[in-house]
Amino acid sequence: MGVDLDRLERQLAFVREIDKVKQILRQTVTLDASRQENDAEHSWHLAVMALILEEHAEQAVDLTKVVKMVLVHDLVEIDAGDTFAYDEVGAQDKEERERKAADRIFYLLPEDQAKEVDDLWTEFELRETVEAKYAAALDRFQPLMHNYLTKGVAWKRHGIRRDQVIDRNRHIEEGSPALWAYARRMIDESVEMGYLDP
Amino acid sequence: MGVDLDRLERQLAFVREIDKVKQILRQTVTLDASRQENDAEHSWHLAVMALILEEHAEQAVDLTKVVKMVLVHDLVEIDAGDTFAYDEVGAQDKEERERKAADRIFYLLPEDQAKEVDDLWTEFELRETVEAKYAAALDRFQPLMHNYLTKGVAWKRHGIRRDQVIDRNRHIEEGSPALWAYARRMIDESVEMGYLDP
Repeated sequence: MGVDLDRLERQLAFVREIDKVKQILRQTVTLDASRQENDAEHSWHLAVMALILEEHAEQAVDLTKVVKMVLVHDLVEIDAGDTFAYDEVGAQDKEERERKAADRIFYLLPEDQAKEVDDLWTEFELRETVEAKYAAALDRFQPLMHNYLTKGVAWKRHGIRRDQVIDRNRHIEEGSPALWAYARRMIDESVEMGYLDP
Repeated sequence: MGVDLDRLERQLAFVREIDKVKQILRQTVTLDASRQENDAEHSWHLAVMALILEEHAEQAVDLTKVVKMVLVHDLVEIDAGDTFAYDEVGAQDKEERERKAADRIFYLLPEDQAKEVDDLWTEFELRETVEAKYAAALDRFQPLMHNYLTKGVAWKRHGIRRDQVIDRNRHIEEGSPALWAYARRMIDESVEMGYLDP
């Protein structure tokens, strides 16, 4: 019944390190439009959404895996920073920056757990499995919904147009046709209401 | 393959409502001590901790249930507000305030899902199952760790003493003897270093 203290210390080093996710600001604002939301809040929101919207996944998913994925999907941003969805310059070296971050942050953990988190993050990024597609759909749907409900605050700040929103978010359909249909209605209405440039 | 739109609307009403959790400030500060953390950040932190520290649970747990519990355990605070762990006056009507909040917030969801969230929250509050005990241990360990690592900022602000910390947190042991042993060392060191009154 002995506790492996070295293992516990490594686990807690990771638990302390990830507190920094609470300071990584995203372009999306909270629904009261009072401030930008951070990665920890966003990840929590996605995890609850994963539970609640499961029936709308394109295929049956391993829900536990989806929840784990969304909980850890932004940890690399502790080192790599948040890359705005519509930032084409930032997107160029995003993969390299994030891989380097993963190598440092995940491997604070005992090797077996580091590998598990790394595998979850890699699966999320590759967006090939049904779980990764559903998780990615939630990760795009949530900021789109926030933009729609806050009258396009972040879209306007960055001069984003309708076609960019469609292009960047159309993969929601792979993970959840129902959420994509709903998203399309939000996009159309956003253009009508002047929240989003045509 | 038809989507039940009324169901989806109810689910999304809930998803929008819970955004408010991001504005509920706790007494605990983030590890850089720059500001109070909020319930969404705290819930996310606990969910990742649940995954990483599972082997330290007192008994084998249904991890998915634990993660679900910690993700939703603070939703009632949207209406009931955060009651500081050492607030004895606030504790008196906490149960009533939170039950009322649960009746409003959870039941934005379709009935079957509202019931599931209500059951998870009730199980967490009763702290009788191994899952609830482990979840509650994490919920107490995290702020204690934050207090220790920020040199007792929140303890000092409220004039909290060692015996209060022991009393309020000793149930960590029911959920995780290893985390309680670790917590005891943090408490002792906090008194030695002057972060916590003897």
